[in-house]
Amino acid sequence: MKLSETQIATELANTPGWRLEAGQLTRQFAFADFKQAMEFVNRVADLAEAMDHHPDILVSYNRVRLSLITHSAGGLTGKDFELARKINRVMEQG
Amino acid sequence: MKLSETQIATELANTPGWRLEAGQLTRQFAFADFKQAMEFVNRVADLAEAMDHHPDILVSYNRVRLSLITHSAGGLTGKDFELARKINRVMEQG
Repeated sequence: MKLSETQIATELANTPGWRLEAGQLTRQFAFADFKQAMEFVNRVADLAEAMDHHPDILVSYNRVRLSLITHSAGGLTGKDFELARKINRVMEQG
Repeated sequence: MKLSETQIATELANTPGWRLEAGQLTRQFAFADFKQAMEFVNRVADLAEAMDHHPDILVSYNRVRLSLITHSAGGLTGKDFELARKINRVMEQG
């Protein structure tokens, strides 16, 4: 289930805005204010519950940092990239 | 506005569960699952908006870590402890 480095490079190329940091798939998002940041966080939370796959979420006023890893696989899996791309679609829809 | 070390010690004694970490007032909370953690986060967010004072919020599945500081004062103020105690009351109410 755990992706190889080559597979990760391919997935990253198809997942704009996300990068590897300390073995996790991460992206930082910025919003107008805390309220809009929290609205985004709640949309991400709904996606996470639907997939039963939960990113670490850090909210600092108008900034939200998401980090993904599949703990049960000990690394990144297709599920991490699938959720990252779903989150990107939330951003694109505004 | 910034509290002295003596004032901080007094406030800490009146704010159960919170401690200083890297100059911030922090507490970690644990819940049954992600859904309950997010419900708590949303109640904290409402308190934060009402006070116009926003903690850093880290959600890791069922755990929530809150960190408070008054950036404009360059340290901890009465507002940080006031919000911390309001958040404690949310926990006590369940």
